[in-house]
Amino acid sequence: MKTPIYLDYAAATPMDGAAIAASEPFLRTNFYNPSAAYQLARQVRQAVEAARADVAHVLGAKDQEIIFTAGGTEANNLAVHGIMQQFPDGNVVVSSIEHESVLEPAMRYDRRLAPVTEKGIIDLAKLDALIDEKTVLVSIMYANNEIGTIQPIREISEIIKKKRQQRSSPERATADYPLLLHTDACQAANYLDLQVSRLAVDMMTLNGGKIYGPKQSGCLYVRAGVELMSFMLGGGQERGLRSGTENVGSQIAFATMLQKNQRQRKAEAKRLEQMKQKLFATLSQNNLGIQLNGDSKKRLPNNLNLLLPSVDGERLLMELDEAGLLVATGSACSASNDKPSHVLLALGLSEQDASASLRITLGQPTTDAEIARAAEILTTTIKAHARLV
Amino acid sequence: MKTPIYLDYAAATPMDGAAIAASEPFLRTNFYNPSAAYQLARQVRQAVEAARADVAHVLGAKDQEIIFTAGGTEANNLAVHGIMQQFPDGNVVVSSIEHESVLEPAMRYDRRLAPVTEKGIIDLAKLDALIDEKTVLVSIMYANNEIGTIQPIREISEIIKKKRQQRSSPERATADYPLLLHTDACQAANYLDLQVSRLAVDMMTLNGGKIYGPKQSGCLYVRAGVELMSFMLGGGQERGLRSGTENVGSQIAFATMLQKNQRQRKAEAKRLEQMKQKLFATLSQNNLGIQLNGDSKKRLPNNLNLLLPSVDGERLLMELDEAGLLVATGSACSASNDKPSHVLLALGLSEQDASASLRITLGQPTTDAEIARAAEILTTTIKAHARLV
Repeated sequence: MKTPIYLDYAAATPMDGAAIAASEPFLRTNFYNPSAAYQLARQVRQAVEAARADVAHVLGAKDQEIIFTAGGTEANNLAVHGIMQQFPDGNVVVSSIEHESVLEPAMRYDRRLAPVTEKGIIDLAKLDALIDEKTVLVSIMYANNEIGTIQPIREISEIIKKKRQQRSSPERATADYPLLLHTDACQAANYLDLQVSRLAVDMMTLNGGKIYGPKQSGCLYVRAGVELMSFMLGGGQERGLRSGTENVGSQIAFATMLQKNQRQRKAEAKRLEQMKQKLFATLSQNNLGIQLNGDSKKRLPNNLNLLLPSVDGERLLMELDEAGLLVATGSACSASNDKPSHVLLALGLSEQDASASLRITLGQPTTDAEIARAAEILTTTIKAHARLV
Repeated sequence: MKTPIYLDYAAATPMDGAAIAASEPFLRTNFYNPSAAYQLARQVRQAVEAARADVAHVLGAKDQEIIFTAGGTEANNLAVHGIMQQFPDGNVVVSSIEHESVLEPAMRYDRRLAPVTEKGIIDLAKLDALIDEKTVLVSIMYANNEIGTIQPIREISEIIKKKRQQRSSPERATADYPLLLHTDACQAANYLDLQVSRLAVDMMTLNGGKIYGPKQSGCLYVRAGVELMSFMLGGGQERGLRSGTENVGSQIAFATMLQKNQRQRKAEAKRLEQMKQKLFATLSQNNLGIQLNGDSKKRLPNNLNLLLPSVDGERLLMELDEAGLLVATGSACSASNDKPSHVLLALGLSEQDASASLRITLGQPTTDAEIARAAEILTTTIKAHARLV
């Protein structure tokens, strides 16, 4: 079988050689428990702390503000439960297009959904109106995993700042509730600025599995002064917020990839944006009747989410697989259930249109030749599909 | 520097070549998200499910009873919070020598400590007396991480069974509370029988990082019918109990090592027991005044925990490190704080004696030559230490 063309980098990324090389020494040789007392274990501890400092540097954060977790889902859950468990009477505002790992934990509390425009950008006025005196946490993803839209995190943090000032004014007395901003940056990390002071977020989630590092690696940035209540208790690792013997090699590989990808993010964003535009232009010229889901400008450079009216998305996906092109309908997480994408529904698409959409996401290994071939496969397969339906 | 002799396998184990080989194909080649829809991803899903079946087979369990987690601490937390969050008015009974990853989550609820004898074995009569009408969960570790003592899990499950029968008798009506038995088998998995039907446990924790597999790999066995409330929500992986894109390679490596070590456990137990006896006999002959902490028979074959009266354990550990022998005082998890071991205190040792104890744990790479050399280093260093103190 010919190697198929993989254009589903939002679902999973292959580990970079640098990530494998970075983790390797900690598997068999420097395998020591970093909490042990002898010199060789202390050296492993130093390697963990050096990785933490590397991550902190990329974010412009303090070392102790980085909490290594076993993946992005864990970090999102730590952020939501970690805050909300302390304020059971408070509420949490999240966008309607968050990943399930924010939507689901938030459901355990008084969760309010902030709507997005038909372009998939948060409606700032409506968000503002949703935040009340009892709002403790606002969680808005930096870039969406399905449609790639980039949220105006800086403007959202300005709203939060204003709300905080209102709360601390003398005539109001709700100082008991903090108001914190979390952002899920899992999909953003390869392409966007991650400086937490510029974004003015209190917490940020990163995921190694989406940046060519190990699956179930990642971290939660937690601004100094923000207190979390953890559900992973024990040996007290990660400032008591993520107990468990550290997966040292994995943490170091994650840090390595975060640094590497942030260093090259502008050049890589430009390269992928060009290929993506080429693919979109070719498909448009081929009269497939495609429309772009989500804003065309405020969007990750590697993401195309296409509405193909009158197409059965699930079936088309199988036909593309057969033809040698691997893409997605919704996110991989929701691919295993049959429900139409909550993200596309939030844009105002009908259930039928939501089920007639394809997500195409480019990545570091993507080449011009692959994009040319993908355009051919898509054109041929979609035309054949249309004749059959 | 000469390679030191490592005798701290209870703290961390090097990854076995078989574990590295098992995980390798899933890092760069078969890196696909197992929830994606295309064939190559479905093959990865099949590999995950095959690993789950392998683990289930070792335990004599059903496939769906195995929940992969990111390590033993996570599995212990899932067991305790997963049950107790559903019954906030209930209580949880744990032994006084449990690992922190059981003791700490249990502290969030009405936690009762079941005492152990001075040999470090659970006092069954006292355990029986502690379990009342509102006890929801009993968590007793299979083998202790510091002193290696093996608990009579089968006898404990008989007590649980009797209590359950009393509850369902007509004159009592506390059917609202289940009564479940969990065991932390992290340290037991290399040497003891893990058949859940023979042990008659409802939940069991296993940890890849202690069986020559990857750190932050492992699972929680959850008997069919036992419902857990999870705090790791999102994509719904692992039956909704551990959301997050699967760390496929890590799960497969864990399953590989569990099978391998269980297959060879009797021969390996015999080999390590002989070396351990040899070491203990030599040290005893050398008049170092050592005493064994914990039962000498009901004990893991690889564990020696020695009381060395009038020794400063922390300092001795540094001197041994210097001399080329890596051992521990308490567990690695608690090595980073200064408190004396809660396990040794639970045996009735004074704080001073608890701080004058060494944990020596053998492992698969341990050789007769290493044990002979370790005996020399221990003898010389302890004698020199005694002269200095």
